[in-house]
Amino acid sequence: MKLPWSTVAIVGVGLIGGSLGRALLTRRLCHRVIGIGRNQASLAEALRRELVTDVSCDVAAVKEADFVVVATAVGSIPAVLDEVDAQVTEGTLITDAGSTKQSIVKAWQRKKGRRRGRFVGSHPIAGSHLRGPTAADETLFEGRVAVVTPTATTPENDVEEAGTFWASVGSTVFVMAPREHDRILSMTSHAPHVLAAALAAATPATSLRFTAGGWRDTTRVAGGDAELWADILLDNAAQVTRAVQQINGFTQRMLDALAAGDRRQLVRLLTTAKDKRNALGS
Amino acid sequence: MKLPWSTVAIVGVGLIGGSLGRALLTRRLCHRVIGIGRNQASLAEALRRELVTDVSCDVAAVKEADFVVVATAVGSIPAVLDEVDAQVTEGTLITDAGSTKQSIVKAWQRKKGRRRGRFVGSHPIAGSHLRGPTAADETLFEGRVAVVTPTATTPENDVEEAGTFWASVGSTVFVMAPREHDRILSMTSHAPHVLAAALAAATPATSLRFTAGGWRDTTRVAGGDAELWADILLDNAAQVTRAVQQINGFTQRMLDALAAGDRRQLVRLLTTAKDKRNALGS
Repeated sequence: MKLPWSTVAIVGVGLIGGSLGRALLTRRLCHRVIGIGRNQASLAEALRRELVTDVSCDVAAVKEADFVVVATAVGSIPAVLDEVDAQVTEGTLITDAGSTKQSIVKAWQRKKGRRRGRFVGSHPIAGSHLRGPTAADETLFEGRVAVVTPTATTPENDVEEAGTFWASVGSTVFVMAPREHDRILSMTSHAPHVLAAALAAATPATSLRFTAGGWRDTTRVAGGDAELWADILLDNAAQVTRAVQQINGFTQRMLDALAAGDRRQLVRLLTTAKDKRNALGS
Repeated sequence: MKLPWSTVAIVGVGLIGGSLGRALLTRRLCHRVIGIGRNQASLAEALRRELVTDVSCDVAAVKEADFVVVATAVGSIPAVLDEVDAQVTEGTLITDAGSTKQSIVKAWQRKKGRRRGRFVGSHPIAGSHLRGPTAADETLFEGRVAVVTPTATTPENDVEEAGTFWASVGSTVFVMAPREHDRILSMTSHAPHVLAAALAAATPATSLRFTAGGWRDTTRVAGGDAELWADILLDNAAQVTRAVQQINGFTQRMLDALAAGDRRQLVRLLTTAKDKRNALGS
């Protein structure tokens, strides 16, 4: 079987990058996976866990790859893409794994005339509140959704190659514009983080012992890295604000029903929520 | 060993009642556990799973018990307490397992002069979004907190007996006034339900496939029974509203930081949330 890629470089071997490397190797989708990063301990851990076959602290190692994935924190992706692009073999396809897409794609487009590589933005929707190569899991992308976000001028072939990449590690691929992606994710990922953080912050420390599974589940994502999430939220600020306001609209309708003692309306709103939630499974 | 109770009656053999019966029997804390309820299929299931030793559709079966726990839905507890009290042997201690305490305790107090039994309110903080005897788990109360909520006139002995009961199934017992309980739980349980439901309701059905663990965790409790939760929220409406407003205050501070592009402030708020969340473990 002719493998689609010979050598894949992954910049950033954290949860996403490490899981991706392991998935590529386990599924024998390429011969070499080069893990690139600044943290030598993380690189050593990735090597020890066989998430990658090669490691390098030098982004110039991307030269040897015929596919590059930038899996660093959202805030750093545009700068890392510039570094990668300065080093790749002409024409190499590059993608990323950032949780926001509009600003990353725009940053690439801004210097489009001077790029060596080709770029299509991606977002494998498969995170966790865990971090680092120690949390890597080769099944992380299986049965999940990956979104590929071309612009109006992205060649169809590039979209297809990026899509094939994510499909090959087990994800169902959806293609949409970067702005559409950010609009949807503001509700399905970014606004939930704001709510979870607000709930955790508002709960008095002395009340924590009186929490059960409900509070724990509802606030779980608030345990995520603060710097990382600040960048995600800032990068999608307008859409996140709009999503939070839509959620607040429903909250207010429930508070109104409470104030009016309107049990029927409250049950109706809770049932809408329950049906939506149950459509997904636990 | 002299057992503290000979026969315990549990009215309502759902998740809480069923788990309690099983815990009492497994730990050999009493000889008989009488499960009482209206749903014959549930009673049969409870018997089949050995959650109880006896079942009855007739609340008069509480006569045979020297301790009675009412573990029905919050909305029904005051009426069930009246039924139980009309049947118990004079002086029997009765408690409940409702998620709110103030209205239940008040309802009991209102007819205090005419009661046959003694009553102390309880809340084992150990629920789940699952329901029914099929979800029963004898370890449900282990390592959890149970709150016992006496009034100013409840005899110390009754508080101690109710506390001993919950401690005997593995819970750490806290004693506080009903109002204090409802204030704390409005933030640790009731308001989270409102937020989770609002998020689930506000998310377009077409966006559900673009959710990952974050949305799933944050909305999990919204899958709970709508009627049951409507009663809990209505029963604690003022405190729930206050808790939601406190949470909304933090949400607004995050939105303000987003609007101002104030990364430092956003990181500060997210860090406060993260520290609070991490104090609990996953």
